[in-house]
Formats: sequence, C-alpha cells, structure tokens
Amino acid sequence: MSNKPRTVFIVSDGTGITAETFSHSILAQFETNFKQIRLPFVNTIDKAHQALSEINQNATKFGEKPIVFTTLVNPEINELINSSQAMVLDMFHTFVAPLEIELQLKSTHAMGRFHQNIETESYKNRIEAINFSLAHDDGQSHKNLEEADVILVGVSRSGKTPTCLYLAMQYGIKSANYPLIPDDFERGELPSELHKYFPKLFGLTIEAQRLSQIRNERRPGSKYAALENCRYEINEAQAMMDRHSIPWLSSTHKSIEEIATTILQIIKSDKSIY
Amino acid sequence: MSNKPRTVFIVSDGTGITAETFSHSILAQFETNFKQIRLPFVNTIDKAHQALSEINQNATKFGEKPIVFTTLVNPEINELINSSQAMVLDMFHTFVAPLEIELQLKSTHAMGRFHQNIETESYKNRIEAINFSLAHDDGQSHKNLEEADVILVGVSRSGKTPTCLYLAMQYGIKSANYPLIPDDFERGELPSELHKYFPKLFGLTIEAQRLSQIRNERRPGSKYAALENCRYEINEAQAMMDRHSIPWLSSTHKSIEEIATTILQIIKSDKSIY
Repeated sequence: MSNKPRTVFIVSDGTGITAETFSHSILAQFETNFKQIRLPFVNTIDKAHQALSEINQNATKFGEKPIVFTTLVNPEINELINSSQAMVLDMFHTFVAPLEIELQLKSTHAMGRFHQNIETESYKNRIEAINFSLAHDDGQSHKNLEEADVILVGVSRSGKTPTCLYLAMQYGIKSANYPLIPDDFERGELPSELHKYFPKLFGLTIEAQRLSQIRNERRPGSKYAALENCRYEINEAQAMMDRHSIPWLSSTHKSIEEIATTILQIIKSDKSIY
Repeated sequence: MSNKPRTVFIVSDGTGITAETFSHSILAQFETNFKQIRLPFVNTIDKAHQALSEINQNATKFGEKPIVFTTLVNPEINELINSSQAMVLDMFHTFVAPLEIELQLKSTHAMGRFHQNIETESYKNRIEAINFSLAHDDGQSHKNLEEADVILVGVSRSGKTPTCLYLAMQYGIKSANYPLIPDDFERGELPSELHKYFPKLFGLTIEAQRLSQIRNERRPGSKYAALENCRYEINEAQAMMDRHSIPWLSSTHKSIEEIATTILQIIKSDKSIY
C-alpha cells in the first residue's frame, strides 16, 4: 500500500449518505489508502463555489487529482463541480441521462432525497416504526403487538434488537422482539403472548461459541455466559422454533443488513414505490 | 402519470441496500410509476441465471424493458445480468473502470460490502455504538458517559433518540441523550451529570407547534402536550443552551439523516478510511 492517501470528496446537495456508502464499497476494491472529506448540503451556487475551491486547493496541494463522488441534482451546481481539477464520478447524471431516453421522459431535476424527506409517508412510517421497535424491545410491552409486521424471537443476545432497529430505520417495518428464556424452556412452551401471532414470528439463532463470547463481554464468568448454558439455551430455542415451524436463521456470520434483507425477503413482498 | 408501472429490479451480490436507496433517489426524478423487485444475494452463477430468467420473463410479460440497478462485483455474474433484455444500470463497473485508470491499479474484484462485513472494526464499532445508545437513551444511565462521542440534549420528543440510533448505526458514533425537563428549568441549571461533558453536548430544538402535535399523539390533551407548555419548555431549553454556548439546531424540518450529518460536521472531522 502507498503511504500517501488519495483524497476522496463526497459532494452532495443532501446528506451524501448514499454516495458515501456506495463510494466505500467501490473504493474497497482498491488496495491503497484514501482520506475522505464530506461536503454535504451543497445546495446553492455559493456553496458549490466553496466546494470547487476546496477540491482545487487539494489538487494543487497534493499534486494529484482527488476522487470526487457526487450526487447533485441541480445541473448548474453539478457543472461547477464537474469543472474541478479532479476525477469526478457523477453518480446522478450518469444514470439519469440514459433513463430519460429509456423512459421517454424528462427528469424533474427536483431534489431527490425522498426517502429522507420528512413530509413523506415513507419517512413518517420509518419514525413510527423506530418508536414501535423501541417500545417493543425485549418483550417489554404486549400493547399493540398486533400492529407488528414481524416479531423476532430468540435467546438473549442473538441479535434481535439491532435487527429490529435496522428494519425500522431502513424499511419502516414495525418489528417487536421477544426473548426466549430458561423459564420458557423449562415449561417447554413459547411465551403465551405469542401464540396468536404465529404467522409473524421469525427466529434468530447463533452459534454457542459466539454467543458465549458476546455474553461474556457483558457478564464475564456468569452462568448466563457459560458455553454449556449457551449451548443448552440455543438447542432448546431451536427445537421450540422447529416444533412450531417458525422460520429462523443464524446470525453468527451475518450483519444486521444481511439479516434484515433476508427477513424482508421472507415476510414481505415488494411493493409499488411512489 | 401512466397507470402501468415500469418494473425496477435491484440486483446485488449483497443486500442491495445501497443500490436500492440510490435507485429511489434517481427514480424520484421521473413522474411515473415503478414497481420494485429486490434480488439480493446473487452471488453464484446459478443464482445469476435465475435472476436473468426472472428479468427476461418480466420483459416478455410486459413488452418493455425493465430497469435493472446492479451492484455486482464478480465480472462473470455481472456479464450475465448485463446480457438480459433490460436496461441495466451497472453502478459498480461504471465507476470501477475509470478508477482503475486514474489510480493505475487493478481492482481486486473482491466482495465489497466492507461496511457491513461483521469481521471489520467498522462493523463492530457500529454494533457497540447501537448498544451504547440504547443503554444511554433518555438519560437512563450515567455509566461510561465519558465514552460518548456526543451527548444530545433537548426537551422530550425533540428527536434525540432516533438521531442517536442513526449516528450509531450509520457511523458507529457513540451517542447518549439526555432530556431537559421542567425540573431543570425551575432550577435554571443543566442536569449536574452533564457539567463535566460540555464539549460533547449538542442541542436539539423544535418548533412549539410541531412539538405539541407530536406529544398530542402520545398523550392527547395532556398538559405535557399543550402548546403553551411546549412553548415554555422550548424557550427555557434554548436559553439554557445559549447560556452554556451549546451548539444546537432545530429538528422541525430536518430528517434524522440531515440532523446526523450536521452533527457529524460539527463534532467529528473526517478520518482516513481503511
């Protein structure tokens, strides 16, 4: 790896979050170092001039072209940034132009951050879903459980909470989660509150070794964290899920994004978008 | 608007979340209807053939080209999807090819979902930050408050909790939040626990009308939700923040993404990435 990192600018008229996330997955393909500078909210000609000047100064200072990822809807602002002494990767217009031809429609050049626009139904659903998930975390409330799109079950620390929050934040899905605890295993029965919601139940499981490690970070040396106990709880929970034909997956090697996407494929078909 | 929606496929070797988010902001530029179908985890030749066949069947059925957004690192899989009877917008290779030239490096063609890869530091930080934010929501714990990157303060329901969760989930930022309540205003002092953390404090405020509306959804007709009371709390909170020179912003017209991005600009400089 070269020691001198190449500068990467993320320039957007909005938050630039999509451009940033995308740029990371592109840049991860190259075995060299990058230094990132975010320039969000570049939504006026004035701010575009400031951004342009910052990019050009960087080019002069380091004697090489910075890489610039842009999502800029406004053509005038976009043109200014495109005129910089940089390598500009124009995420927006690269795809809008061919789409105009294919769809035989002119694009509106309106700010396109609809997923993040607080006046939309989609945004309101996301916030409502976050509140719902927080109120129904760890089985703490049975109120309005019938409103849940999905109810995650699994042993403590199997990844239910972050998955629920991600489903809410990204997709506006109302998810509750309910821990399966030793009491349930002794009784050999799912918590009675869940019996009327079978079609909404989805299970998470996890390898015993990994669970023990996670629990030991929380409560070192406890019975709760002991490998034997983890193994027992996981076996019982899986048997219980299988008995009730609850679909489940293992979170051991999956990120919350991967778990959420998989659950979404199972519980929810795609919907029309706007 | 035309009544017959055009089909949009999101095809990815990973979750497809970035491609989906990005496609929404692009498609929002066109005043027509779209129907979205997600095809995540297309990471084998077999799955690529299945995806190809689904796309082609759709093209035949509707007699027009579906729009296909792809993020496919593997060139063989990518080529297969590119051969479909669709308009393919290849987010990945469109930008990797010119970058190879500019950087004078070959890309690794390795799966690029590093932000979501559970073995990375970045992913572990995100999960740890989510747990931290949940443990330090609504002032419920002062333990390890010194570990917080930022502590949000503001009146109840000003948007602190979802902002903290977003900062954690997207950026791995440890954020706590602390409500400013009538007791604090009567005493005319910030909660004493916060006094040693001034440099980490950031305030959220909100318009009284909007706050009253949000609180009324929770507790209809309560004093808590009354416009007069909201106005009082907001004025007191803003005065308190100004007195202590705590930077603040209004969440009234901002999404959690916009609030988080703004906070990030203020509290945290950009860091080198991998």
